[in-house]
Amino acid sequence: MSQPHAFQHYYPEDSSHCYGCGRLNPKGYHIQSFWDGDKAVCRFKPEPYHTAIPGYVYGGLIAALIDCHSTGTAAASAYRQAKREMGSEPSFRFVTASLHVDYLLPTPLGPELSIEATAVEIKERKVVVESTLFALEPQGPITCARGKVVAVRMPDNWIPDSEGSNEGTKETP
Amino acid sequence: MSQPHAFQHYYPEDSSHCYGCGRLNPKGYHIQSFWDGDKAVCRFKPEPYHTAIPGYVYGGLIAALIDCHSTGTAAASAYRQAKREMGSEPSFRFVTASLHVDYLLPTPLGPELSIEATAVEIKERKVVVESTLFALEPQGPITCARGKVVAVRMPDNWIPDSEGSNEGTKETP
Repeated sequence: MSQPHAFQHYYPEDSSHCYGCGRLNPKGYHIQSFWDGDKAVCRFKPEPYHTAIPGYVYGGLIAALIDCHSTGTAAASAYRQAKREMGSEPSFRFVTASLHVDYLLPTPLGPELSIEATAVEIKERKVVVESTLFALEPQGPITCARGKVVAVRMPDNWIPDSEGSNEGTKETP
Repeated sequence: MSQPHAFQHYYPEDSSHCYGCGRLNPKGYHIQSFWDGDKAVCRFKPEPYHTAIPGYVYGGLIAALIDCHSTGTAAASAYRQAKREMGSEPSFRFVTASLHVDYLLPTPLGPELSIEATAVEIKERKVVVESTLFALEPQGPITCARGKVVAVRMPDNWIPDSEGSNEGTKETP
């Protein structure tokens, strides 16, 4: 099963508008995730204005990167476990039920960041993803944060129809 | 102790560049937090491009709002407990050690959001803040997410000096 593109490339068009990872959101971060063996890896270079206190990366961005990379990893892991090509129907698309981030060290603003994620539990409607965020300093990677996301299959009725009706759902994107 | 401005107005200038809540970050969200009795309240109206799937707010923004509002609430609560005016020296400025968000319902994109936060534990160097995020729909508020932040006092050596030296610290902004 070859997979030359980022996980997010295979998301259905109607769920590709996410500010974090949607390829169709012109203002968003366009987070991209790829397999590297058994790990899913996302690289991202923050902008100079993504600052917390001067010199460090804003924690909300770190949370957002972990969030979107983890839901992408959940989808890709579900396809892998099912031995299906990513993007094949029916679509596996996951949303976040809970997000936890431990900030271990201040994340330096400047170097590229790398997030390595692994699905530690894969069930039909729920995938748990653990991740580590590194700052790729010239002298070597620094472990700056760890994340844990509980991702759940997106209910089919979440994409609004032409009348905008998608009420009565239980989880959030 | 009158406090006519947002908590973030009283942050020292050198810690007011945060993308989430820094008044000196020209591109940031400019999150503002105020007391309403014993609760700290933050209101925020997402932009149309802060989308997850169409019609809903991007979860990374929700995490960012909870994060910055909670560290602001931690600082304000520490000043209140010390019976000191916010902004008086020595400054109480908190950073996030851990962030947890439970996404209970999809957050509709359109209405203003309100986050109500309470410090449930206040120690000298650590404040725990719990919060609830509501979407202020015309028919009444909808509870969409809950947050829990462990905030820690920012070490004095975190603000880079003129040579950019602030190594050896243990937590992250």
